[in-house]
Amino acid sequence: ENILEAKPVVYRQITVPQPGAKEYSTDSGLVVPSISYELHKRLLTMAESYGLSLDRRLEMTGVCASQMALTLLGGPNRLTPKNVHQRPTVALLCGPHVQGAQGISCGRHLANHEVEVILFLPNFVKMLEAITSELTLFSKTGGKQVSSVKDLPDTPVDLVINCLDSHENTFLRDQPWYRAATDWANQNRAPVLSIDPPVNGQEQAVEAKWSLSLGLPLALPERAGRVYLCDIGLPRHVFQEVGIKYRSPFGCKFVIPLHSA
Amino acid sequence: ENILEAKPVVYRQITVPQPGAKEYSTDSGLVVPSISYELHKRLLTMAESYGLSLDRRLEMTGVCASQMALTLLGGPNRLTPKNVHQRPTVALLCGPHVQGAQGISCGRHLANHEVEVILFLPNFVKMLEAITSELTLFSKTGGKQVSSVKDLPDTPVDLVINCLDSHENTFLRDQPWYRAATDWANQNRAPVLSIDPPVNGQEQAVEAKWSLSLGLPLALPERAGRVYLCDIGLPRHVFQEVGIKYRSPFGCKFVIPLHSA
Repeated sequence: ENILEAKPVVYRQITVPQPGAKEYSTDSGLVVPSISYELHKRLLTMAESYGLSLDRRLEMTGVCASQMALTLLGGPNRLTPKNVHQRPTVALLCGPHVQGAQGISCGRHLANHEVEVILFLPNFVKMLEAITSELTLFSKTGGKQVSSVKDLPDTPVDLVINCLDSHENTFLRDQPWYRAATDWANQNRAPVLSIDPPVNGQEQAVEAKWSLSLGLPLALPERAGRVYLCDIGLPRHVFQEVGIKYRSPFGCKFVIPLHSA
Repeated sequence: ENILEAKPVVYRQITVPQPGAKEYSTDSGLVVPSISYELHKRLLTMAESYGLSLDRRLEMTGVCASQMALTLLGGPNRLTPKNVHQRPTVALLCGPHVQGAQGISCGRHLANHEVEVILFLPNFVKMLEAITSELTLFSKTGGKQVSSVKDLPDTPVDLVINCLDSHENTFLRDQPWYRAATDWANQNRAPVLSIDPPVNGQEQAVEAKWSLSLGLPLALPERAGRVYLCDIGLPRHVFQEVGIKYRSPFGCKFVIPLHSA
């Protein structure tokens, strides 16, 4: 064993075609470079071409994001049969896009674990298919859905999960529901977890305490808070096919904290 | 808080239409009744009708089963960048059915986490679609696939994952590949984890140290070893629609140990 351990540890196990705007490191010192949104998108499209469909990704992201949220809510100390009368409350703010669908999947898994979930989703005549399928499943939990910010709680909740922003449709930010929801989040005193937040130049409307990136991180701004990385099940050769040399930084975990290097 | 906590804790939060052949309990004393295979099947069919497709279930089962397997393999102590030269080896034995597909999904997630995975799957001319889609994804990991027991390791592996049995096609047990694979598993000295093992009267060909049931447990025989329950993301009303009164026994976990009550 000693002979084997004497080999030097390689900390730079992930290399990307273009140097990212930021580098992160894991608790054990592995380097995790950031990638551009364009490369991230190509990575997901490549994964989809091998059968890792959006549906599967929604399920996996929902499970892992809810595992992180359950830890933030207090984990085993909070969720025992003995304090079933003091269930934590989560306000889940979703826009009408894939990021919103990821949030609803997370919300379903939280509601399945007896968390009180209030989902805010603005009314639209025509919804993305990924949203409607997530909503059908969410409606089978004990979770509550509202389409007006007025129906969100007046008092602080335990956690706000922010999935209002999409990586592409930045024009949504000008809509009244978006402004109302971000104002509500900024006025509620609960800590905010952002799932898959974008980096598109503009200031993020809601300051997060934690942000969860998927697969590989984008170069997130300060307002994204502490960055975590979520395993979304991409095999190594999928990274390779978009030019990324990859070795998992996750160890035995599926969500890990990242530190600015 | 004291006033709320004074309410008595209800330990029987799950009730089933027919009393199951066995009752289990969780670490915190919640009662988890077993259900029949027929009711389990109706539960999954109901979930599928609301959009919780086989694909989604495969993804979630794979994630949660691999989280359990990673813990059994030693968790953070075993999987650090420092002992990357001593990667654990898992032999994954799969039959040509949904149980096999669940195993391959678990194998992909393990291989994604730098576990050395050797997948045994017998050759068939026509495979179930769920199997071929899992195989495509598995082939993008560093995992190895073999179709002959001769190509499985001679030396003990760290863990055998058994997904050879289906709930319905018990005739597979008479096939030469089945016998060869179960003989191999019984001769290798590694501990065995069975995922979603059936209860169909016959003796289980491979004795398991642990068995992972999905959603709600069947009444497993002694040879199934220690029983664990895996959350597969079913919302409460889905249980209700097949006559099961359900409240999650999982707390903040997605895999929990069950004890014979």
